[in-house]
Order: sequence, then structure tokens, then C-alpha cells
Amino acid sequence: MTAKADASPARLTFGKKLRAARRAKDMTLEDLAEASGMNWSYISQVESGHRNIAVDNMWKLAQGLGVELKELL
Amino acid sequence: MTAKADASPARLTFGKKLRAARRAKDMTLEDLAEASGMNWSYISQVESGHRNIAVDNMWKLAQGLGVELKELL
Repeated sequence: MTAKADASPARLTFGKKLRAARRAKDMTLEDLAEASGMNWSYISQVESGHRNIAVDNMWKLAQGLGVELKELL
Repeated sequence: MTAKADASPARLTFGKKLRAARRAKDMTLEDLAEASGMNWSYISQVESGHRNIAVDNMWKLAQGLGVELKELL
């Protein structure tokens, strides 16, 4: 986990928009974890800006939500 | 370096758009390296899709080019 204090604005924006998009689709963390093939607690940390997530995983989460990645930035 | 074969479409798109935006501004790899505080050979590998770049570095590169990150996705 990387300190949120060092997080870029883009990391924080991605986390917030990911959470908002997930909730807008009434998906739980577990639902998105299953849809994206990732761990729900990792996703929670991404949403709160505590993970400097890499582009391939960003893409998997966007795919799991059924949205374009650029909509989450 | 991660094999390009495993690269997500988003990683490849980011690399191509990064290179196109850099060239459109007549910036060399060294110019962008200086503007973003990163290593020019790393940037070259990102442009060719060989690096699963993390969001904080994606943001630094967009800042170094003076563009919005979402324009590179």
C-alpha cells in the first residue's frame, strides 16, 4: 500500500469515480471483484486511493463495470 | 518489463497516444523525461507497451506533456 498523501490527483479521481460508477450500477465490491477477476479488498483500497494501480488493472475494473476507462479519469 | 503479449488494450492505447502527443509537440524522449521527472528509456518502453505503468506515473507523463490524462486513453 502506498501512502495516500503521495497519491496523484489522477489516482484519487480514479478511485472516487470507480466507487461512484460501481454504486450507480448497484454492484457490491464482491460483485465487481467477480466481474473483474480481482480481490474485493484490493478494489476497496483502490477506491480509497491507497493503491497506485497499474493500467492493466484499471482496464480490468472498467471492463468489469462495463464502462470506458476514460470515463473513470 | 512485462511481456507486451499480456498488455491490456488500454496499455497499448496509452503508449501510442503518449508517443503521438509527444511528437505533436516536437518533444524528444529526453524533453519529456525532463518535463515529467522520469527516465527517457522507461518512457520509451511505456510508449511501446512494454511497461504496465501505474496511474501516478501516467499522471506525471500527462502533466509533462501538458495534456489531460483522459486524452491519452
